[in-house]
Amino acid sequence: MKLGGDRETAGMRLSFSRHCVALIWSKRARARIFNESPQGCACIALRCHSKLLLRPKNTEEVSNILKYCNDRNLAVTPQGGNTGLVGGSVPVFDEIIISTALMDKVISFDQVSGSLVCQCGCILESLNQYLEGQGYIMPLDLGAKGSCHIGGNIATNAGGLRLLRYGSLRGTVLGLEAVLPNGTVLNCLNSLRKDNTGYDLKQLFIGSEGTLGLITAISILCPRKPSSVNVALLGCESFSKVLQVFTLCRDLLGEILSAFEFQDLESMNVVQTHLKLMNPLQESPFYILIETAGSSVQHDEEKLNVFLAKALESGLVNSGTVATDQSKIKSVWALRERITEALAHDGYVYKYDLSIPVEKLYALVEETRVRLGRTAKRVVGYGHLGDGNLHLNITSESHSKSLVAALEPFVYEWTAQHCGSISAEHGLGFKKRNHIYYSKSPEAVQLMQILKKLLDPKGIMNPYKTIPSSG
Amino acid sequence: MKLGGDRETAGMRLSFSRHCVALIWSKRARARIFNESPQGCACIALRCHSKLLLRPKNTEEVSNILKYCNDRNLAVTPQGGNTGLVGGSVPVFDEIIISTALMDKVISFDQVSGSLVCQCGCILESLNQYLEGQGYIMPLDLGAKGSCHIGGNIATNAGGLRLLRYGSLRGTVLGLEAVLPNGTVLNCLNSLRKDNTGYDLKQLFIGSEGTLGLITAISILCPRKPSSVNVALLGCESFSKVLQVFTLCRDLLGEILSAFEFQDLESMNVVQTHLKLMNPLQESPFYILIETAGSSVQHDEEKLNVFLAKALESGLVNSGTVATDQSKIKSVWALRERITEALAHDGYVYKYDLSIPVEKLYALVEETRVRLGRTAKRVVGYGHLGDGNLHLNITSESHSKSLVAALEPFVYEWTAQHCGSISAEHGLGFKKRNHIYYSKSPEAVQLMQILKKLLDPKGIMNPYKTIPSSG
Repeated sequence: MKLGGDRETAGMRLSFSRHCVALIWSKRARARIFNESPQGCACIALRCHSKLLLRPKNTEEVSNILKYCNDRNLAVTPQGGNTGLVGGSVPVFDEIIISTALMDKVISFDQVSGSLVCQCGCILESLNQYLEGQGYIMPLDLGAKGSCHIGGNIATNAGGLRLLRYGSLRGTVLGLEAVLPNGTVLNCLNSLRKDNTGYDLKQLFIGSEGTLGLITAISILCPRKPSSVNVALLGCESFSKVLQVFTLCRDLLGEILSAFEFQDLESMNVVQTHLKLMNPLQESPFYILIETAGSSVQHDEEKLNVFLAKALESGLVNSGTVATDQSKIKSVWALRERITEALAHDGYVYKYDLSIPVEKLYALVEETRVRLGRTAKRVVGYGHLGDGNLHLNITSESHSKSLVAALEPFVYEWTAQHCGSISAEHGLGFKKRNHIYYSKSPEAVQLMQILKKLLDPKGIMNPYKTIPSSG
Repeated sequence: MKLGGDRETAGMRLSFSRHCVALIWSKRARARIFNESPQGCACIALRCHSKLLLRPKNTEEVSNILKYCNDRNLAVTPQGGNTGLVGGSVPVFDEIIISTALMDKVISFDQVSGSLVCQCGCILESLNQYLEGQGYIMPLDLGAKGSCHIGGNIATNAGGLRLLRYGSLRGTVLGLEAVLPNGTVLNCLNSLRKDNTGYDLKQLFIGSEGTLGLITAISILCPRKPSSVNVALLGCESFSKVLQVFTLCRDLLGEILSAFEFQDLESMNVVQTHLKLMNPLQESPFYILIETAGSSVQHDEEKLNVFLAKALESGLVNSGTVATDQSKIKSVWALRERITEALAHDGYVYKYDLSIPVEKLYALVEETRVRLGRTAKRVVGYGHLGDGNLHLNITSESHSKSLVAALEPFVYEWTAQHCGSISAEHGLGFKKRNHIYYSKSPEAVQLMQILKKLLDPKGIMNPYKTIPSSG
């Protein structure tokens, strides 16, 4: 990309060790963004022409690369597992890709405190497997765990399935090391639960999608592996009953509640139709997936039974099934976790990831359904209800400009009117950065732009992402 | 204080509504800092000469005050309950004090999600009482709860007794509103658990001790009030056994563990001697206070009994007592919570609030004891072991320069060598800001200074606090 000044042709004069320069860009990122996240705004094609992908092995190499690029006004795009849904890790023009794939070492794990220190390129699922062997788990879990990198998770402030129980990465990340655009290594890699010495600089990098620096190593607090896990799938007649079940659930399951997910009938239909998964319950307008994770098999089962009895007796749920063994747990989770995959078989998918106060959360799905009428093939709503996070997905036979026009800015305006967030957990990346004003005040965006300018005065770090340009 | 430029005499030309200008500064802050926190470095006297204390009632008034002061280069010190231990809320010279005492309104509380929105001057204990009536509690609790303000808690990133269970304020604070030094109101006051739209600006203000802006309102996620609370006090023969009990505790109490505090014999002696509190156990080198909080009385008691039986059988603890009723719980907690108060009766107190990896945590107390020999009256160690937080306190008959010289920089260097933090939860304020380099790299401190300069170019916000001057 052209950044002016004494720019050189990307990669032509770089002189790093051989393993660093790995391969010519294979259009994988572009392919992924179309195959896996055909969003409503995907009509904005990401026609990247990167010619160079670098794979540093350590922080020093990242520092050398960034210093070199910054001195010569060469733009870069950090890339982890490239599983994001908003184009945050995909170059827009010919940015040099800095892949974290070779920075995949565990540095240390403390058995007493549960703090894990590792390089940024460790794959989330690998870390979880490593920890399980020692009686711990990662505090986050998400569908892309098999390929996403922990550095990318933190750079995007990933949410996912365990947030309800273990909180956000802003609380569980204890420290990090990042390389600033000018090559300066910022070492904030401590492993302390408490540290009030000055401003918490690591927070600047969590969720900034690689626009302020490249996270090279992290320290994270890991919870103990629960010795008892149960999953229940329940059918519900109305969304107001779903909310009542949520309240009951928090009263009776309390500290062992680890997930409260919901999906509507339409999203259940899509996994049955396209993936041939079996719904063990009778047909219902809504389904709830509850997971408990605790330290006592007997106590957890008793709590769950008391809760289920009350939920059935009071008519809040019409049917239910409980899974305690691993294979059944997996098959129940599949009904919820594989909705995205099933939707991809349904046609062109328009995706929205929204935070909305829970009471009003499903009203948007209903209004969207009425608004689109028969122009949409399906309008589905599902998500992490316990976190107020709705995934609103719409499908059509093929991409339709008129459908996009009916959806946007309607969805964003509705969300803003209800004090929600237009990106709950996916971030803004390239695709949504100009929609930031629906969720943030002009003063806030201006301060973000000033911070970006401060840390990356030449604008080489992941340009065109997250924050709208100052102009 | 002199900031140069067209400075006016503080308060002489201010023209706010009457309730705003409350009283002439009464040296209360100075008195407090000597009476309640006679620290090792208290030889640096805080000789403030503030002549004006303003008590705004709302954000607009705060904005007007700051704009006025910024335009005229008048320095200000935000002040909540003024309970801090490092002089963060005490003016150094004649800074205008902006008290948050009249900004004490609850704005809203959402019964389903548990999110509380309130003004910055609400007293922590009052908020907790308000929430308890609705089946919730605040996610933080600390000794100063009766007078500290929630805005001050967040500005100092307060830790306290519930951090082990509910995590830090960086995770539980959902949003905040802050007024920047130039009077700009920055509204980041959402109540969403997930919001990934741009940089998380609220984190800049959490823990920055009023040096970047004044927090005027907050939104915080509150946990349900537990229906069952138990407290156990245990005696232990060695610190290595204390650590083994911690591991056992996390295995067997799991999700219901809400506090794991420890205190050594010397700190038990001090509460017995000066406050005449009764120790229900036999004399032991160490005591552990464990609290459980859960949703089932029966399950929690069973878990606690299994844990206690195992801890006693295996010889990890030599004695123990369990409290389930409110008055006994209170009297057991008093043994740990009133150590600070008891120490004040013992003489001059040198206080250190440190984060240290748990395995090495008590070694510092032992080394300090050996180092000081008979020059100190007492060397005591206690704290939030579950968070790796040691409170190291030393007493002498009166203030002694030679004792300070024996303690500093020894304590800070020891902490730095063991990768700890020289301020776990108290912050740096005025007293410790120049010690920041023991816990933070020069690159990190430089970036903090740049951020301070960016948000407060004239340096009017709480000068001489938290960050060392750039020069």
